[in-house]
Amino acid sequence: MTASQTDFSNLKAVFVNCTLKPSPELSHTQGLMDNSIAIMEAQGVSVDLIRAVDYQIAPGVYPDMTEDVPGGNRDRDDWPDLAKRILDADILVIGTPIWLGERSSVASRLIERLYGLSGEKNDRGQYLYYGRTAGVITTGNEDGAKHIAMNTLYSLQHLGYVVPPQADAAWLGEIGPGPSYLDEDSGGPESDFTRRNTTFMTWNLMHTAAWLKSAGGFPQGGNSGDEWADGKTFDHPNPEYR
Amino acid sequence: MTASQTDFSNLKAVFVNCTLKPSPELSHTQGLMDNSIAIMEAQGVSVDLIRAVDYQIAPGVYPDMTEDVPGGNRDRDDWPDLAKRILDADILVIGTPIWLGERSSVASRLIERLYGLSGEKNDRGQYLYYGRTAGVITTGNEDGAKHIAMNTLYSLQHLGYVVPPQADAAWLGEIGPGPSYLDEDSGGPESDFTRRNTTFMTWNLMHTAAWLKSAGGFPQGGNSGDEWADGKTFDHPNPEYR
Amino acid sequence: MTASQTDFSNLKAVFVNCTLKPSPELSHTQGLMDNSIAIMEAQGVSVDLIRAVDYQIAPGVYPDMTEDVPGGNRDRDDWPDLAKRILDADILVIGTPIWLGERSSVASRLIERLYGLSGEKNDRGQYLYYGRTAGVITTGNEDGAKHIAMNTLYSLQHLGYVVPPQADAAWLGEIGPGPSYLDEDSGGPESDFTRRNTTFMTWNLMHTAAWLKSAGGFPQGGNSGDEWADGKTFDHPNPEYR
Amino acid sequence: MTASQTDFSNLKAVFVNCTLKPSPELSHTQGLMDNSIAIMEAQGVSVDLIRAVDYQIAPGVYPDMTEDVPGGNRDRDDWPDLAKRILDADILVIGTPIWLGERSSVASRLIERLYGLSGEKNDRGQYLYYGRTAGVITTGNEDGAKHIAMNTLYSLQHLGYVVPPQADAAWLGEIGPGPSYLDEDSGGPESDFTRRNTTFMTWNLMHTAAWLKSAGGFPQGGNSGDEWADGKTFDHPNPEYR
Repeated sequence: MTASQTDFSNLKAVFVNCTLKPSPELSHTQGLMDNSIAIMEAQGVSVDLIRAVDYQIAPGVYPDMTEDVPGGNRDRDDWPDLAKRILDADILVIGTPIWLGERSSVASRLIERLYGLSGEKNDRGQYLYYGRTAGVITTGNEDGAKHIAMNTLYSLQHLGYVVPPQADAAWLGEIGPGPSYLDEDSGGPESDFTRRNTTFMTWNLMHTAAWLKSAGGFPQGGNSGDEWADGKTFDHPNPEYR
Repeated sequence: MTASQTDFSNLKAVFVNCTLKPSPELSHTQGLMDNSIAIMEAQGVSVDLIRAVDYQIAPGVYPDMTEDVPGGNRDRDDWPDLAKRILDADILVIGTPIWLGERSSVASRLIERLYGLSGEKNDRGQYLYYGRTAGVITTGNEDGAKHIAMNTLYSLQHLGYVVPPQADAAWLGEIGPGPSYLDEDSGGPESDFTRRNTTFMTWNLMHTAAWLKSAGGFPQGGNSGDEWADGKTFDHPNPEYR
Repeated sequence: MTASQTDFSNLKAVFVNCTLKPSPELSHTQGLMDNSIAIMEAQGVSVDLIRAVDYQIAPGVYPDMTEDVPGGNRDRDDWPDLAKRILDADILVIGTPIWLGERSSVASRLIERLYGLSGEKNDRGQYLYYGRTAGVITTGNEDGAKHIAMNTLYSLQHLGYVVPPQADAAWLGEIGPGPSYLDEDSGGPESDFTRRNTTFMTWNLMHTAAWLKSAGGFPQGGNSGDEWADGKTFDHPNPEYR
Repeated sequence: MTASQTDFSNLKAVFVNCTLKPSPELSHTQGLMDNSIAIMEAQGVSVDLIRAVDYQIAPGVYPDMTEDVPGGNRDRDDWPDLAKRILDADILVIGTPIWLGERSSVASRLIERLYGLSGEKNDRGQYLYYGRTAGVITTGNEDGAKHIAMNTLYSLQHLGYVVPPQADAAWLGEIGPGPSYLDEDSGGPESDFTRRNTTFMTWNLMHTAAWLKSAGGFPQGGNSGDEWADGKTFDHPNPEYR
């Protein structure tokens, strides 16, 4: 028996690793993500894994950069297939290394392309990402995990994801150059602090996704772009009457 | 009839205005917060309002800076009473002006003091703020609303608040010096974009709070600091077996 | 003989410690700042030290919150005297602890009040802070030094300070709770990385201040708000001719 | 006669446009950068222009991702040639659009690759970028210019660039969707605020570069990584004697 009676086995999660290193190179970020994946799989969640740098994700903010791009189509864009996999999941976990205190350029590309779909609506008239939940995993040598979580969780909630409590897990080494997470004697995999935060984040994502699943998505009412465009204002005061 | 069938009348919200101006001075941030408050009140939510700068919130990160402070107690600290009001609410909305692209020092003081209670646990062994939801309202002349929402929503989720979709609403004027939100001809109160985002944020906070209320708090399982301290690891892999 | 032939003895520096702890409590941030101060004093620089929390710096963005404040004067404001000391110095170093990944509320208050003078000009028509150089020192348990330096150095250059190379020095402990800089066995004072960065920052501030001193301030030409207001455009293209 | 007597004609500048749109598509960011370029060229500065997205800049943090990369070389990397052009210049200006409040992924890639050379030293034992100065130009619909300047100027000073006063220039439209800088009736090219900030940034970069040029680089003393590695401590106190 686990700590929760909730059945999470109808949930799907997608983990997007935004390392700069293509497969099959060792990714320290993947090492930390694997712990979150293991918890989800132990709870019956179906897990998909994308290493973004293995794909050609075109720069731009249109849904498919090979079609209908004002200014000219790109030759290739692997994004539309990746977008399907991301939208198929109830839970999104973005993993990223830290370079000069920032998330990777691959993570920034991912956010740009997620943003490129933000004009689309679900069948409740809500933005497309509503009904899902998201978290962030970060690994770095010394500094920057909170900064990256600030930036990335902001984007995710702005797009429509629910951010559960303690949705950021990270490992950082001591200040200055030093071993990375999976390096011998880094102390990373043994860090009680990182293990606890990874665990809490993972469970909180599952709890939130289970709620959203049982509710058939994020609740309706006061959040439909379509209804707003039709003139509904959901009790917002009228500025003319100030 | 409103867009939602949900009854929100058992919910409580607290709005903390972090303007630099004491009462009764005109606060533009309050002007925008009032729209969110009006929506909540129309839906039966009980609303408490705190203008933080009217109180003496001592610098420091202990629960009560007049008691048991290593290094010396302060003479006065209004925080413990404010903390009770904030913890009494299901919904927290922090409002802040922008100065040089950053949230106000009053907002930073608020976050520091909220953080000062983060060692405490609720009766589920979760951090104290679990079971609540939070959003951010920002007003400024020209730039910085997203930056402030990044910083502030990060802190709130890290403390245990759920961040619903689109939990940041803001108004900004054109680049450069110009009118503030409530100034004549600012265009602020008439901004369809700001009105829509304020509305969506407000409803999403109510929906999320209603879920948490009906669940008796954030779901248990995998997120108890007390249980973790007792050695439970909630399916996290054991590093020794790698 | 030191590494530099330059005589820095005509320079003045002000260090503003933005700890939350009033004197004479132990400030870990002061511990790190003291190393930078020692280097400057060894080179003959005159050093002034302000612990900001020891003063009542009123919230607001007017030069003196006890005079001519629209909406009402405050009873007390220690800022005008502090501003004189800060403007009297060629070098400004802001020191701050990290709380929840952010600079202290005391540091934010300082930036707000510095910003409150930004409408004023020097005798070259430049913003008041031109002709000075600035850096940032940060101490924390685990994470956030770069984030704080981003925020704070941005403000300083925007106000008119020159930011020299590697103007951020910091010490961070391992991820999770742990000892602070001056605690026994923190490893802080022994960190070669922190010692080197503190040294480079300090010397680069002195070099930059010496240049500005010898030039009588930041060079004139193309940066006078007064001249811009008089219609000079300093070779900026005219939009009408596009 | 211009405002300055200084001869800037021996200076070189490189502008890197980090738009997501390949040539010859219209880049609004380029539109704003062109004003800075025009000022520099009027003053005799030699200007090089790179549109980064036109090149294949490999992900990674090694100087040349086609050579000596642990884990495997990439097939193609245009970075080494770009790096030469950037290092050949006294002034670097990074231009970027804003997407979801952040700099573009192309700008992040650029910073990663600049960082990849940060282990190298100049003939003074200083980090490679010493002796240069840098600024940032940003264009966006509504919000985020200061945030991007914080992130990007931080990286640049950390790498060794001098950041002069007011080194960030930007144009932002009103809050919400709207016209971009070069769109008809955006008001962008006519913005007095943006024109002034672009002008001041440009001149301050030229003044700073002229100083560095006349000094033969950033002054020596207290900032040599090579000397530090050899045991010189430049008056930093010895922790053993505390």
